[in-house]
Amino acid sequence: MSQAHPAYDALTERHGRLHRLAHLQSLAHWDQAAFMPPGGNDARTAALTELAGLLHRQRTDEAIGPLLAQAAQEPLDDWARANLREMQRDWQLATALPAALVERRSLAVSRCGQAWRQQRPANDWAGFLENFRPVLAVAREEARLLAERSGLSPYDALLDQYEPGMTRAGVKKVFDEVRQWLPGLIQAAVARQAAQPPLIEARGPFPVEAQRRLSEQVMHLLGFDFNAGRLDVSAHPFTGGVPEDVRMTTRFNEADFLSALMGTVHETGHGRYEQNLPREWLGQPVALARSMALHESQSLFFEMQLGSHPGFAALLAPMLAQAFGAQPAFEPANLQRLMTRVQPGRIRVEADEVTYPAHILLRFDIEQALIDGTAQAEDIPALWDAGMRELLGIDTRGNYQDGPMQDVHWPEGLFGYFPCYSLGAMYAAQWFAALRRAMPDVDERIARGELAPVFDWLKQSIWQQGSRWTTRELTERISGEPLNPAHFKAHLEARYLG
Amino acid sequence: MSQAHPAYDALTERHGRLHRLAHLQSLAHWDQAAFMPPGGNDARTAALTELAGLLHRQRTDEAIGPLLAQAAQEPLDDWARANLREMQRDWQLATALPAALVERRSLAVSRCGQAWRQQRPANDWAGFLENFRPVLAVAREEARLLAERSGLSPYDALLDQYEPGMTRAGVKKVFDEVRQWLPGLIQAAVARQAAQPPLIEARGPFPVEAQRRLSEQVMHLLGFDFNAGRLDVSAHPFTGGVPEDVRMTTRFNEADFLSALMGTVHETGHGRYEQNLPREWLGQPVALARSMALHESQSLFFEMQLGSHPGFAALLAPMLAQAFGAQPAFEPANLQRLMTRVQPGRIRVEADEVTYPAHILLRFDIEQALIDGTAQAEDIPALWDAGMRELLGIDTRGNYQDGPMQDVHWPEGLFGYFPCYSLGAMYAAQWFAALRRAMPDVDERIARGELAPVFDWLKQSIWQQGSRWTTRELTERISGEPLNPAHFKAHLEARYLG
Repeated sequence: MSQAHPAYDALTERHGRLHRLAHLQSLAHWDQAAFMPPGGNDARTAALTELAGLLHRQRTDEAIGPLLAQAAQEPLDDWARANLREMQRDWQLATALPAALVERRSLAVSRCGQAWRQQRPANDWAGFLENFRPVLAVAREEARLLAERSGLSPYDALLDQYEPGMTRAGVKKVFDEVRQWLPGLIQAAVARQAAQPPLIEARGPFPVEAQRRLSEQVMHLLGFDFNAGRLDVSAHPFTGGVPEDVRMTTRFNEADFLSALMGTVHETGHGRYEQNLPREWLGQPVALARSMALHESQSLFFEMQLGSHPGFAALLAPMLAQAFGAQPAFEPANLQRLMTRVQPGRIRVEADEVTYPAHILLRFDIEQALIDGTAQAEDIPALWDAGMRELLGIDTRGNYQDGPMQDVHWPEGLFGYFPCYSLGAMYAAQWFAALRRAMPDVDERIARGELAPVFDWLKQSIWQQGSRWTTRELTERISGEPLNPAHFKAHLEARYLG
Repeated sequence: MSQAHPAYDALTERHGRLHRLAHLQSLAHWDQAAFMPPGGNDARTAALTELAGLLHRQRTDEAIGPLLAQAAQEPLDDWARANLREMQRDWQLATALPAALVERRSLAVSRCGQAWRQQRPANDWAGFLENFRPVLAVAREEARLLAERSGLSPYDALLDQYEPGMTRAGVKKVFDEVRQWLPGLIQAAVARQAAQPPLIEARGPFPVEAQRRLSEQVMHLLGFDFNAGRLDVSAHPFTGGVPEDVRMTTRFNEADFLSALMGTVHETGHGRYEQNLPREWLGQPVALARSMALHESQSLFFEMQLGSHPGFAALLAPMLAQAFGAQPAFEPANLQRLMTRVQPGRIRVEADEVTYPAHILLRFDIEQALIDGTAQAEDIPALWDAGMRELLGIDTRGNYQDGPMQDVHWPEGLFGYFPCYSLGAMYAAQWFAALRRAMPDVDERIARGELAPVFDWLKQSIWQQGSRWTTRELTERISGEPLNPAHFKAHLEARYLG
């Protein structure tokens, strides 16, 4: 870019500043979930609220509108043009919300999210409801204001924050299809697994320290850069921090090594995406991950496509024997069966990939009703129990901690996020199908432990693209077609019925 | 305060905002020392530099000068008047330095401080010097600008930041006295200890996990509130965080349990001071700890007056037996002798209280010369070696990591801080003498494990006072006289020669 573009340059400088301040925000959120003692919460909430307000004022500065208009007339190369598109999007989202609402939102979700950390283990739905009502109220107001600005419906406006270009109708079309075949597929997979020779269960306990070392070993195998990130523990596993310093968390259950192991593989997918975003654009919106579904497509590619692959189980087997002592359960074929056991259960993050979409369908139904106002916060348990009975045939009555209180999303005000998980699973299957076309021996390579070509393909195709393309453009560039859930169905059928 | 004071109110609002943003700064510094992977340093440095600049702009906003002048005319109660005095001090310090210098300083010390974490273990003085020269240059410039504003000399201006009201001449007067009697006292104490029956050494190794549990147990005994703080590990132990969430660090040496134990006792003194600052004023300058020497007076009260007290050794003994298994070395009288062994050595933070002042005299001499410009960065090793030979009779040549590279202060640009440690030791002795007058059976109480009255006295006398009084006023209120090093000498003579 040899030509002059002063307005665009002024905007990049502003976004660099925002990025540096957001670093501190991200760190404080990570610490709040992973390390902060409960007594520190009020001060942390106040600090984060202050920073949220400050960032919001900077993102909505009145100079930005004219700069955006002027930059649109300047000579820009393709990356810069994409960066400007993302800047416009940021401006649109930020200016839709008044500062007072942003601060109120930050306060409400910080309070609710933190109290949830104690209330969930206590199964305290009534206590949770007290803090959750204001979160829902502010989310509805946010949805209404975002909708006014964008012309979308309120739920679509929330969804669009996480998944630009996706709508409720688009999700519904795909999910309605899944609703058709999912119950049958679950039944068939369960029946098929029941007919196989008995599984050999792993015998615990699995000491936390051994699990932690194993997690780090697996992260190494998956290419996580420990010079630019770390693994810690939190109630709800997540990946936070910044691309230069990715903070992953997991949680350890001494009775079940698979929970932390698969969780770690999942979060490592997020972590590697962040660590490999385009460095030369870091700090600019175009260097951000494309969308939440794309992010989940990476974690689910790692967890489901790669991590639950028979070839990968063979790589894990000796590590498990080293960590916990050899036992028959760790024989590769048995291990892969353990990792792909289909079993309707209460917990989303521990669900197998076949029953997983049911958890998302349920949440998608409930959160639409919450935002539309056709359901209230106190209606959630009844909706939850009915949905779980219908979708997975299980009884969840009275168990809030493993029911509507299990996830951090709603307590933290994230409505419209859940669909991204299943969209992500679909994208992941679509990527693996594209990878197999580009690299026909990929399955043998994985079995031989040659993972580098897989990561290189992801890096070139997705990670290094940042937000250079829209999700649809990117999907078509990688796979030659837009999102197509048939790949997901084919993947499940091949693995569970084939 | 029923009368109106709009200017004062506007100032308190601004300081509340600064406090909330400084929370994030403090957290990011703690994480940088305790958890951050090396690859995250550039981004962290950039983020902290951005925030330092932002805070500086807020602290020097042109509206503040007129508000301070107007508030001085408003009806204020005593605490508010003291708060205004501290606001004026903050304004004076902040406006003395241009924003560009503050950002340059933040950048230089962040780089140097982080590189030091690798360079120190590698004994890489040449590498360190590269980063340290810009730190020294910026410190000299800072000193010159602060001096211009305050009318103090450059070194006094630096010292005044940490120890308001104290001057080089004031320190020199006290330290010159110490220089007279210290060598003789060290010799006499060493000779007396050599003449005693042989010490029973503790037999290690002392596993890190057992040390960590012991540290937390001792913090409990010392009243640390784990609901509002935590203990982690860093290369150089420190106490950071915020009063509502105090982040203490220590480091564990498996060959020597006393190092982490005494370090933890020391930092807990800092931690309790922070945790007990006046809550109703939190966020305002008057709620800050009075000064660095006062802060050190609390850590050294904990470590030396209380922690090395024969009665306290009797409380520790069963905890040690539980942590590491019973052994003859943990017998209370022997344990107290281990804790009070006088032994000239290279490391300041591991020095006994008798040789400790020698470490400070050395640093005080060198840093004055560095700031005056009569010595350069590359002269430090020679000055160091000569001083250590003269003051403690030890040979430090070629060992930079346990020599001038051992402390984080200079790499982080803190010149004028070191004297506060020995001033703190003197205040601590003066406080204990005052406590003994107020509570003649304090020694028996400590031996019985009745520590609450000691903490209550500290809380009322010092912690809850925040910056309500000047250091001199506070000293006189507590002890009936200004700083008097005779108490420190008397304490050492009683314990080591008595």
